[in-house]
Amino acid sequence: MVEHSTRQPGPDNRILTATSALDTPFLAVDEQVLDANIARMSAFAAASGLRLRPHAKTHKSLILGQRQLDSGATGLTVATIAESETFAAQGFSDLFIAYPLWLTENKAARLRAVMARARVLLAVDSVAGAQQLASLLPGSSVLVEVDSGHHRTGVVPELAGEVGAAAVGAGLQVLGAFTFPGHSYRPGGGPGDAAGQESRALFVAGESLRSRQITPVICSGGSTPSAGATDSTVLTEIRPGVYVFNDAQQVELGVATMADVALTAVGTVVHSSDARAVVDVGSKILGADQPAWISGGGRLPDEPEARITALSEHHATIDFPGGSRHPAVGERVRIAPNHVCTAVNLADTLVVVGADDVVTHWPVDARGANT
Amino acid sequence: MVEHSTRQPGPDNRILTATSALDTPFLAVDEQVLDANIARMSAFAAASGLRLRPHAKTHKSLILGQRQLDSGATGLTVATIAESETFAAQGFSDLFIAYPLWLTENKAARLRAVMARARVLLAVDSVAGAQQLASLLPGSSVLVEVDSGHHRTGVVPELAGEVGAAAVGAGLQVLGAFTFPGHSYRPGGGPGDAAGQESRALFVAGESLRSRQITPVICSGGSTPSAGATDSTVLTEIRPGVYVFNDAQQVELGVATMADVALTAVGTVVHSSDARAVVDVGSKILGADQPAWISGGGRLPDEPEARITALSEHHATIDFPGGSRHPAVGERVRIAPNHVCTAVNLADTLVVVGADDVVTHWPVDARGANT
Repeated sequence: MVEHSTRQPGPDNRILTATSALDTPFLAVDEQVLDANIARMSAFAAASGLRLRPHAKTHKSLILGQRQLDSGATGLTVATIAESETFAAQGFSDLFIAYPLWLTENKAARLRAVMARARVLLAVDSVAGAQQLASLLPGSSVLVEVDSGHHRTGVVPELAGEVGAAAVGAGLQVLGAFTFPGHSYRPGGGPGDAAGQESRALFVAGESLRSRQITPVICSGGSTPSAGATDSTVLTEIRPGVYVFNDAQQVELGVATMADVALTAVGTVVHSSDARAVVDVGSKILGADQPAWISGGGRLPDEPEARITALSEHHATIDFPGGSRHPAVGERVRIAPNHVCTAVNLADTLVVVGADDVVTHWPVDARGANT
Repeated sequence: MVEHSTRQPGPDNRILTATSALDTPFLAVDEQVLDANIARMSAFAAASGLRLRPHAKTHKSLILGQRQLDSGATGLTVATIAESETFAAQGFSDLFIAYPLWLTENKAARLRAVMARARVLLAVDSVAGAQQLASLLPGSSVLVEVDSGHHRTGVVPELAGEVGAAAVGAGLQVLGAFTFPGHSYRPGGGPGDAAGQESRALFVAGESLRSRQITPVICSGGSTPSAGATDSTVLTEIRPGVYVFNDAQQVELGVATMADVALTAVGTVVHSSDARAVVDVGSKILGADQPAWISGGGRLPDEPEARITALSEHHATIDFPGGSRHPAVGERVRIAPNHVCTAVNLADTLVVVGADDVVTHWPVDARGANT
């Protein structure tokens, strides 16, 4: 029989103490850690001479976007027209939709309304996409997306000039190139290797654009894992997103420590036996992201050895190695999601614990705004 | 160079034709397939002498829950108090919360309000949980959860009597036992093996309860994969959820064919090259569920050989084997999610295409109601 703990929330888990009156499960944010994360990335960008355009798909929050601008960000990145609508409607005036949209008349009409409120930079990665965009939104400003090794969207860097010239020919303004080095999400040398490939891809893209008489004024890259290795001799801008919260992926990649993780799901132990503990935090709270290299379905900041061996919609099944101590039913635990962007998109509100332990609720304004 | 297709939506993809005016991505439901799925499970349950209590966590929809009742279901199963609140507020009068809740005073107050509107059956799987429940909601009716091999919540079947007796001693009404044979989600013999273990577990649980002078009137089990192999000599009730829509998991398990899949995400190709096509349907639309045995991040009903080799928040990267035909940028495709329950929980509305091709929007009433 394992010994069930009789732990009470103490100084180490002030989040649990401050939120003890709330029904689990929910997402809790440590505002001090959050603000430190925002400040650290802003300071890095400033010291490196890089503009910072954080990706708001991570938080989908007007409050958080404003904090990023207040801390020195020059604008926000978003992934969808719907996200741009949410932020533009509340006065965010400089937005980059870092996605090679295929425009329809309806999407173009939505974008025109956004552009009436904000400066919107768009993305192209094909001649056909650029021509479609130009036919519906002539004169728009765009960056050409290039593939720096993640092999998702983006043309090979050598073709940036061809796409850029087609865009110019169709009547668009081409301001430069961007890439997403998503292959930085790989343990070992991933982040540093990806940053090197990002730099080379954007350098080649810039040369390719120049060969077609297009001067790149923006060379944009950057993910949270690779940001710290950004080559500021090539890049002018970085677009990290996850850094505001961090998550279990960043910890297991070695990019952040658990002390840097600002967002955790708070759950209650509903089952505790010799074999396992089960918490009421499942994939409908944490998201189901689980790359092959990660240790489980999330991490427990207060139980470094614990592993989430299974995650279903409303259950996290947790193995406590050594068999020594299981939390008892009714105890609360915190779980860092593997990927905070998808966890936040599941929640209507974030429970924010301030430095004074006062709890406030922040809406996830663009939750579900994924079209 | 691959040949890009010039396919137009034809008789085989009336869903794409009917929804062509809508911005992608979105979740589309083929109402004819949906209704056939509902009718088939109801007919099976009726022919087998089993009560059908579908799990509403799959659809979270009042319209769909009502269709299930109209088709013969005797009540609904839900996973959370919040789901019970949604359904009870709109007149659903018979609900089973199939989850061993750890009650707090606040959760108990919420449940009292639900119980003022509906008959609510609860679950226990520990002596401590039963005592906590009895202290806050004395006289409640419960089933004892037993573990039939999924190894999540639930006591071993031989202990059902001990937990049941503690519940009775604390003042609860014990009506029987239930299990979730989640290990039916395994290719090969999974569903049939799990149904056999479910039957044995519930038989043993019944004997264990009787040994403590508790007569089980409800023996409840059933998942979509295992439902067809249910042992109706032991079980009185099944609780499948996914069957209303089906999904890529059910197809790859051999439980459903692609023609039985009623819900698909509709997306637009945003990138097409020799190497791959990328569609604007990512994990924020499909969910990221991907068990080790499945072939990719979802399946394309209209392209049986295609595989989703990577899924990020707003991108599905698709490999078309043979290299013969890629859809061109701007074309629309349908993708069946791996796990429909988590996909639906991401959407505020479902786009429903009726037999007459008329498009209506159904709200996902309990979206995010996961606490």
